[in-house]
Parts: sequence; C-alpha cells; structure tokens
Amino acid sequence: MRAAVIGSGAWGTAFAKVIGDAGSEVTMRARREAVAAEIRDRHGNEGSLPGVKLSERVTATTDLAEAVAGAELIAIAVPSQTLRGNLADWAGSFPRDATVVSLMKGIELGTLKRMSEVIVETAGVAPERVVVVSGPNLAPEIAAEQPTATVVACTDEDRARQVQHALATPYFRPYTSDDVLGCELGGAIKNVIALAYGMASAIGLGDNTKASLITRGLAETSRLGVALGADPLTFAGLAGLGDLVASCSSRLSRNRTFGEHLGRGESLEQAQAATRQTAEGVKSCLSIRDLARAHGVEMPIVEQVEKVCHEGADPRVAVKLLMTREMKPE
Amino acid sequence: MRAAVIGSGAWGTAFAKVIGDAGSEVTMRARREAVAAEIRDRHGNEGSLPGVKLSERVTATTDLAEAVAGAELIAIAVPSQTLRGNLADWAGSFPRDATVVSLMKGIELGTLKRMSEVIVETAGVAPERVVVVSGPNLAPEIAAEQPTATVVACTDEDRARQVQHALATPYFRPYTSDDVLGCELGGAIKNVIALAYGMASAIGLGDNTKASLITRGLAETSRLGVALGADPLTFAGLAGLGDLVASCSSRLSRNRTFGEHLGRGESLEQAQAATRQTAEGVKSCLSIRDLARAHGVEMPIVEQVEKVCHEGADPRVAVKLLMTREMKPE
Repeated sequence: MRAAVIGSGAWGTAFAKVIGDAGSEVTMRARREAVAAEIRDRHGNEGSLPGVKLSERVTATTDLAEAVAGAELIAIAVPSQTLRGNLADWAGSFPRDATVVSLMKGIELGTLKRMSEVIVETAGVAPERVVVVSGPNLAPEIAAEQPTATVVACTDEDRARQVQHALATPYFRPYTSDDVLGCELGGAIKNVIALAYGMASAIGLGDNTKASLITRGLAETSRLGVALGADPLTFAGLAGLGDLVASCSSRLSRNRTFGEHLGRGESLEQAQAATRQTAEGVKSCLSIRDLARAHGVEMPIVEQVEKVCHEGADPRVAVKLLMTREMKPE
Repeated sequence: MRAAVIGSGAWGTAFAKVIGDAGSEVTMRARREAVAAEIRDRHGNEGSLPGVKLSERVTATTDLAEAVAGAELIAIAVPSQTLRGNLADWAGSFPRDATVVSLMKGIELGTLKRMSEVIVETAGVAPERVVVVSGPNLAPEIAAEQPTATVVACTDEDRARQVQHALATPYFRPYTSDDVLGCELGGAIKNVIALAYGMASAIGLGDNTKASLITRGLAETSRLGVALGADPLTFAGLAGLGDLVASCSSRLSRNRTFGEHLGRGESLEQAQAATRQTAEGVKSCLSIRDLARAHGVEMPIVEQVEKVCHEGADPRVAVKLLMTREMKPE
C-alpha cells in the first residue's frame, strides 16, 4: 500500500513508523524542510521522537501534493483546531478513493464537530472513507516498539479491516470497530480528564482520589456519548477506558503534564511556556462543555477543567468541589 | 451507633478510624494483646498503619464476645480463606440484629463462595443484614484522610443508607448500591488483575500495555459478573473500575507489589518472604478460575496469573501470551 502521513509531530511520526514497519511505502508531509530532510535522509525525527529510527520505506517532503499523490491511505495528525483551515488547501490534492485516517483527538471550537465530521465536510470525503485510530497509544512507547493495542473505527467494516491489516506489526495490534463517534469522543474527552488528573496529582491527592476521578471521568464521557448515539461498550474498551487510563497514568501524557503545571498554580501562559505547547484538552474542554450543555448532559469534571483553564478558577477549589458532591446512590 | 471491627490489619484499622471519626463508639478485636493494648491505650496501631492516630472513640480487646457485645454493626476484615473457620467460633456471640459488614475481597477456595455467602451460611445471618464495602480504598490513604469514595452494597436499601451515614466523614464518602454480588466480584478479581499488572510493570512493559491490561481485566471481570447475575454497571463504577485502577496504579497496593516480585522472577515463597504476606489474589485466582470455567466464561488474565502463581509458568511468557492474541473486532 502507498500511504501518506500529514503532520510530523510525535504521533504522526510514530504512525508513519508503524505503517512502514507493516510493509507500506510512506511519505510524510512536514511543514519545515529541515524536518523533511532529516526524515528523508536520516530516517529520524529527533525533534518529535528522539532516538527513533524509521523504516527505509518512510520518506518525507514539505510538498503536500507530492506527499499524497497516489496514496491509498492518508493519515492526518495536525492540531485539531487547525484541521478545517488546512483541509481547505489540501483536499483538492487527495486521490479520489483514498482512505482518510484521523489521528486527531479534539472537538472543533464553535461548530462542536468531531474531526471526522470536519474531514467529511471540508474535504468532501464520504463518511465511509474516514477511519479513526484511537486507543492507549502514547507515541514514544509505540516508537520504542512497546506492545500496544489500538482501535480502528470505520462505518465501513471492510475498510476498517483493510486498515487493520495495513497497521499490524508485532508491537502494534489494531482491533476494528464501527463506532466512529464513540472512539472520537473517548479520545477527545480523555484529554480533558487527564488535565484534571494532572491537577489532582500536583495538588498531592492520593491514588484513591485519582482512581475515583478516572471512574467518574469515564462515566461522564459515557453519558455524553450515549446521548449523542455512541455505543456505550466503546467507552469500556481500548478507545475509552484504555486511552483514558494511559493518558492519566503516564508521565508521557501531554495533557496530564499540562494539568500538573496548572495544579502547581501556573497560569495557562506559564504552563504553555513550560511545556512549549498547548495540550489538546485546553481547547477541547470548551467545545465539550458546550456539547454537553446542548444535550443536557452533566459533565462536572469537564466544567471544572474549563473553569480552571479559561475562567481563572483555583485548581484546588475545583478539584475539591469534584470530590465533595452530595452523597447518593452511585 | 455501637460498632465492632474484627481484624486489626491495615484495612480493619482504617475502617475503625472512619467509623470513630464519623461519631460511633468502636471496639476492635485484635488477636494479639500487644496490638489491642496499643489501640486501647495509645490509639495507634504502628504495625498496621504507622503514624496514624485513631479517635478516642476507638478501643480494642482480644475477646471476641466483648468486642461484639451490643454492636449494631460488626465489620469483618480477616484473610478471606480464614473466614469460615473463624465465623464458626464467633457467630454465636453476634447480637441477633446486627448488620454484618464484609471488608474482605476474596472467593473461597473449594466452595467458590463469596464472603457474604460464607457469612450468611456460617453465621446464620440473613442476606439482607450483610453489607459489602468496596471501592478504591487503599487503607494507608484513608488513614491519612485523603479524600476517598466507596460503595456500600446491601440488598436492603435502607440498611445500605444507614451504613452510608454511619461511615460518612469529610474524607470518606460512601455511595449506596444494591449489587452485593457485583461489588464482591469486582473486589476479588481486581486483586488478580493487579498481580498481572505488577508482573507487567516488573517486566518493563509500558503504559500503553498496562492500560490495555486494565481494560481487558475489567472486561473479563464484567463477563463473569454478568454470567453470575451482577449488574454490568457495577463494574464501570467505583467498586469495579475504581478499585481496579487504584490497585493497579498504586505502590501501596499489596497485590501489585506481590506481582512485581513474581515478575522479577521470584518464586511464590520468595515473594511471600519479601512482602511478609500472601496477597489475596494469589489464592483467589484459583477459585475465580474455577468459577469462570464452571460458567463457561473466558478469563485469559486470570488463567495466566494462576499458571504463574501455581504452575510455575514464566511471567514473561504469560504476559506476552496475553498481549499477542489473535486480531479481531474489539
């Protein structure tokens, strides 16, 4: 198979490694020529994944049209809030029958759309050609060939199976699903819960509290998912619980790390400066809160994270509020 | 309320602290006079919970009949496999209308009974008088007054609410449930999954793998639970997911720690010597495996843990087998 990966961050690069290792020819599209040249000439991307060696089958270019020319599979891993603007420029170059794989985990501000919806709308790709890959998939561990399982979701089951086989390596094991909606919500909301988890960690709360936070985080994710029509079992699986646990418990998780900075009392700007990026959950907490309100679903953790990130609330007060709600049947 | 706690280990002692802090008079029953005297005279139990101060309302005795005399609530926290033998001696002293709270998390070898079933059978207590308390409840954190949520399960909802109120303190927040079966299975099986998690940690597997192990562990717990008639939602709650995550992720978890010893290649005897105890999961993996087989339920993690603990299997091979099963829809 000929594949393209748009985006040369940690996840895009790890994904390109997986497809290359699984036997496909991969062209990555990087924005900066220095990064493209490093991938092309030295099969590495030190800025995103230090020390990782990509297959000889992985190459790169800064030219989007060149990257996607002839690709049967186009994977996109760019910041969620930039997707729509980018796609408007790119979509004309996509081969007509290509499968488009979303590696992004966010909900668009304003429109409250999922990434697969933005792809369908903006790139004119039929929904059954869009595939979502999501699960407990910390990129540095995949790049280090740690055993990892993932979910490949598509409304077209045959396409899901094709992508599953195109991604299968001894260290990366994809499972198929037809619940695109559930997988995308799980991936986006877990970023917000991981921010709360990071805050709770920095504040010094214990493992009992943090386990309750994960439990309640998954419960509110599931509530919104069911209200929107997702399969509740998706949230008990790798793209729900699995992704949530990995993002909360790992020091490699950007959202957890960002939450720790906030929990130590840093402002959003200070946390951004310290981590040299904005965690996806910081923006998505706004759109997820709006989505929950629009559907009359209670999401207390998302509400509190939004207040800390965007309304100057004290994380200590926010986390305490979450832990001292009224006693009731579970 | 007048309460008794039988057992002076970490969980029994922390539970006595909670009831005392919530306003009840508590008499603990310890086997050794030195421990009883320490609790009675100095309101501490350094052997089980170093540095923890119990309320003045907590006292102790080695005399079982004295401990339970006049008690409206009797909580039991002894090793699961010793419960039946002990109860035969004790039950005659229990006040007729007392609520009996099980703090134990195991399945009896041979009979494959849950602890509440053993209490009903052996102590002649009506099922609606038996309450199970379970959740993400690492005892040292509760004793340190870290915010903790728990589940109080009883087939009699009024009784569940009474116990809920008897346990509520600013740091300990109980929620009620009527799913005694689900809470007990969640508590017992999570010990076995935490052994597997500990092995995976010691072997050096990453957070992606460990998050998958938690996800699959909860899935197999839920499968057995549903086959036995539990409410599937219990496993998504504090007594399922919450307890599992706390036991897997915390360094305070005995079963996880024990699994780490096994994962480093130590024998059962060496791990017991190093930890000075047998983790509950080491015995329960046998009875849970038998229960699963009797009901035709697949529990691959429990099967592998049993093989490592009791059949000399190599934990590296066992964990690898779990991570490389056939690809399929999730």
